[in-house]
Amino acid sequence: MPETTAFPSFKRLLVGKPIPSHLAHHERLSRITGLAVLSSDALSSVAYATDFIIVTLVVAGVGALGYAIPISLVITSLLAVVAFSYRQTIHAYPTGGGAYRVAKENIGTMAGLVAGASLLVDYTLTVSVSISAGVLAVTSAAPELDRYRVELCLFFLTLLTLGNLRGIRESGRIFAVPTYFFVGGIFTLIAVGLFRYAIGAVVPITAADAHAATKPLTTLLLLTAFANGCTAMTGVEAVSDGVPAFRPPESKNAAATLVTMAVLAITMFIGITVLAHVYRVIPTPSESGVSQLGRAIFGSGTVLYYLVQVATTLILVLAANTAYADFPRLASIVSRDGFLPRQFMNQGDRLAFSNGILVLSTFAAVLIVLFRGNTQALLPLYMIGVFISFTLSQAGMVIHWRKIRERGWKTSALINGFGATVTSIVLVIVTVTKTLEGAWIVLLLIPVIVIAFKAMRQHYDHVAAQLTLRGYEPQARVHNTVLIPIGGVQRAVAEALRYAETLSDDVRAVFVDVDPIATEHVRREWLTWGGRVKLVVLASPYRSVLEPLLEYVERVGAERTDDYVTVILPEFVPARWWQHLLHNQRALLIKGALLFRPNTVVTSVPFHLEK
Amino acid sequence: MPETTAFPSFKRLLVGKPIPSHLAHHERLSRITGLAVLSSDALSSVAYATDFIIVTLVVAGVGALGYAIPISLVITSLLAVVAFSYRQTIHAYPTGGGAYRVAKENIGTMAGLVAGASLLVDYTLTVSVSISAGVLAVTSAAPELDRYRVELCLFFLTLLTLGNLRGIRESGRIFAVPTYFFVGGIFTLIAVGLFRYAIGAVVPITAADAHAATKPLTTLLLLTAFANGCTAMTGVEAVSDGVPAFRPPESKNAAATLVTMAVLAITMFIGITVLAHVYRVIPTPSESGVSQLGRAIFGSGTVLYYLVQVATTLILVLAANTAYADFPRLASIVSRDGFLPRQFMNQGDRLAFSNGILVLSTFAAVLIVLFRGNTQALLPLYMIGVFISFTLSQAGMVIHWRKIRERGWKTSALINGFGATVTSIVLVIVTVTKTLEGAWIVLLLIPVIVIAFKAMRQHYDHVAAQLTLRGYEPQARVHNTVLIPIGGVQRAVAEALRYAETLSDDVRAVFVDVDPIATEHVRREWLTWGGRVKLVVLASPYRSVLEPLLEYVERVGAERTDDYVTVILPEFVPARWWQHLLHNQRALLIKGALLFRPNTVVTSVPFHLEK
Repeated sequence: MPETTAFPSFKRLLVGKPIPSHLAHHERLSRITGLAVLSSDALSSVAYATDFIIVTLVVAGVGALGYAIPISLVITSLLAVVAFSYRQTIHAYPTGGGAYRVAKENIGTMAGLVAGASLLVDYTLTVSVSISAGVLAVTSAAPELDRYRVELCLFFLTLLTLGNLRGIRESGRIFAVPTYFFVGGIFTLIAVGLFRYAIGAVVPITAADAHAATKPLTTLLLLTAFANGCTAMTGVEAVSDGVPAFRPPESKNAAATLVTMAVLAITMFIGITVLAHVYRVIPTPSESGVSQLGRAIFGSGTVLYYLVQVATTLILVLAANTAYADFPRLASIVSRDGFLPRQFMNQGDRLAFSNGILVLSTFAAVLIVLFRGNTQALLPLYMIGVFISFTLSQAGMVIHWRKIRERGWKTSALINGFGATVTSIVLVIVTVTKTLEGAWIVLLLIPVIVIAFKAMRQHYDHVAAQLTLRGYEPQARVHNTVLIPIGGVQRAVAEALRYAETLSDDVRAVFVDVDPIATEHVRREWLTWGGRVKLVVLASPYRSVLEPLLEYVERVGAERTDDYVTVILPEFVPARWWQHLLHNQRALLIKGALLFRPNTVVTSVPFHLEK
Repeated sequence: MPETTAFPSFKRLLVGKPIPSHLAHHERLSRITGLAVLSSDALSSVAYATDFIIVTLVVAGVGALGYAIPISLVITSLLAVVAFSYRQTIHAYPTGGGAYRVAKENIGTMAGLVAGASLLVDYTLTVSVSISAGVLAVTSAAPELDRYRVELCLFFLTLLTLGNLRGIRESGRIFAVPTYFFVGGIFTLIAVGLFRYAIGAVVPITAADAHAATKPLTTLLLLTAFANGCTAMTGVEAVSDGVPAFRPPESKNAAATLVTMAVLAITMFIGITVLAHVYRVIPTPSESGVSQLGRAIFGSGTVLYYLVQVATTLILVLAANTAYADFPRLASIVSRDGFLPRQFMNQGDRLAFSNGILVLSTFAAVLIVLFRGNTQALLPLYMIGVFISFTLSQAGMVIHWRKIRERGWKTSALINGFGATVTSIVLVIVTVTKTLEGAWIVLLLIPVIVIAFKAMRQHYDHVAAQLTLRGYEPQARVHNTVLIPIGGVQRAVAEALRYAETLSDDVRAVFVDVDPIATEHVRREWLTWGGRVKLVVLASPYRSVLEPLLEYVERVGAERTDDYVTVILPEFVPARWWQHLLHNQRALLIKGALLFRPNTVVTSVPFHLEK
């Protein structure tokens, strides 16, 4: 019967084949692939972090740009601290220590929920920010495409959505290419750039007096530049979340990968910042700093320049892709705890992941459209979520060490405590400098999500209490009165009557009399087609069909106390979707009206239309 | 049981009390109320028809405005012809002769459908055009409101929608006030204006050289001005559509009302056009000609000026309101013929009218938003529908007379033939001059609607053929295998089991084994709660719950040929709407998957959650 498989095969087309249980963990990550798969988010942020520092400082004039280097040095030392701190999480949580889990287990449910909400927001912004930064790399190389910026962003988003629905997550190995391609490209850029500087062949991109200062160089401005630069730290947590994906010894491989990643990120970030200073780069909304450096160092239109741009786009799209693994996974964990709808929970059949993917894509698309695909405009929203989860995760680890009190726990607690302190300071700075620039949206959103989490959990708890069998006394209902509202006698009705006869010995067809001639006709037809079913004709002074019917259901319900009332409706199943609009409206009304009536069941008997 | 009435009372709140059959025709119209109720559309168009002529002519310079008077004289003679022609329809169709009916009965189904599609488009545009013209009367008096034009339009639209859903149609008498108020206001304006002209106290509003000619005065321009002025003719058909609403003798009263209406419309239209010429009125998108005349004749800020503006707004909103009676009535007639979904058909319980009202409001709102509530921009769309239905209706009448060949039929046919010729010439002129200005939308839309009409009718015909009992042999299915997919044993499942036991002696609960511990638990619970129901445990190598279940349904279906398969699903009925999102997703998937399987019925047994 081909019809029965129509639905599953459509789903298959959309989400791919299911994964058999015994194959679920067949593909483990080496250090090489692990770095590629888990560090794209962290490494790719060096493509835009320097830009954000410079754009902030330049309002105080070109002279203020000298502060970019010390600021980036502070940020990289923080990055080292945070990476070191997360290295501890890897060893403490070899089965994966996301901020939600660490905060929930050690600090408490509320902290876990705040971390979870922050992460969900963060993943959504990872998608929007990475895609728009990736598109900026495209439009930097091809400025004529800038007016299609939003369309390009949505194109990449659609690609990622469809790819993930089909299941590109599994083929982790192909991810090695863009990551190492990007790292190679940036290191070549830095090497050639420094070589040209060494031989004195640098022509600054911007004139020294190109930008007049429009604001004084205040501490707040320096803090804002610092806060913006902290985007370089996003993504550091990815390795510690993914420990179980590594080949054994998992923790050791993960820790080594984390350290490699931190070293690469720090080197590239400082390298780009130094070059940006030397070449006097001032990024614009339509051309990124890396692109300007590429033109100055390799020359516009050279193959090397285009290779770096392509690599940048690829790694940024890849970074967006990591959120497509993280978001559904976290949603699944949160859902298992009862704080999100159950549709996100079941990972067995990819449908749950599909729900997560669709929700993520929808929100990311909204952000892209609202902010016109402008990375700099999205940025203020980005970091609050990241640093809330950083802080809660590190703070959770401090409590973790205090609880287990292994040998050397004080050192471990100290390291994580230092990490928590550092990230909480950054969080405060980010909050202060970014709230008015748009971060208030996130500050509002996180509590709203937490409240929604709690409402859903409360609802599931209430449901569980109502579903308990303890003290449940089944009612002694042994009889079933079956009613079939009919508007005439035709084949769909005749088929419904035959079905109804198998259900009960008390089946009644109910016809509402609005036209004496039609009623007489039905009575005559009944002699042929009625079978064991009794015909009940109801009067309708108001020409309404629905009301007399509902009143009759009430009357039947009152007749005896030991029965169910089953209302059977013939339902047309049309061959084409638009034909749905032409049928079953009255059935829908009857269902709606009887939905809340106790011991009443409404059943649709399908009648399949052929065309 | 208060729950069972929750739905009907919500509907009542929305659409008001039902009308008992014996009261449906209690309120008949006198000539006085008939004129007020049925002529607001025709009379109100004089508020903007002159403006459209002037705005078209002025591009050829102020000197070209002299043509406005001869053009309006031509239009009024056409109006007289059309009114005279419709007077015949009144006598031939005392039960109401709308263009759909007249064209369908006399020319053929296709002509009827074209007339019907034209009228539905026309009614929608009547709402958009009249409301935006009404708002123009408001913003002319209070220019600071002009930037809220679209919002004001939507406000009036919402008012009309809610009012009609609640049923303001019945209180026809209150409509007398704005119509006579408007007629009185315009006649006072004309009288005072002519008096001032007679005593030589006219100060022209615009300087004679204010508008330089930007285009030559071509025949095409004159034809365009004429076409625009023909808006004065819209609404003439209303009386002939509403004959049965009059007191006896219906036809005589209706005919007298039609003549009165035509005389009033002609007098006001010529009066305003003459004044506009004398006072050299040049309407702008933000101030109507009537408002400019009011300021010049009564003085800005005088009570009389404001009264005329208020009356203009009221009659225009009233004109929009007539479409709220016409659209659902026509939709109901077309639906009865099978060319529109049945939801529009049943007039007994106001729900069908509500559907028509909501569809009308939705389309009118789309037009208002798309055209920013600009009457002049909407106008090119307006008249094609009107004149198609005029022409088809008059042409149908010619054939009508030829068919019945009563005494004097030749004169009658001659009058209607003249009417048809005149309106078809206007139709050609409107089509030629307006197509590029936006009327192509309507020219595209009407065939699309006609195709949809035919597709729906064809579908209903196919359904009727499939529903016929001729040659129908009921299958000998006497047995019912009842399956209950369960995910565990809890109260909702226990209740569904008890219900299922009343349906058949072969009831099987189906549990998919994805976790041996859970399966063992279910087996133990079954000893207590299983009752007469057999427990079937299915293996699931892919951890999928849906697939093994669907395969099992197939297996059961193949077991014997004389049975139905009924799948029973416990369905949570939550107390709050948002809780729906948290439940029943799997049930929905199962229903979708089994929808097309023959002899398979899916039944939801509601479990009512209390909070």
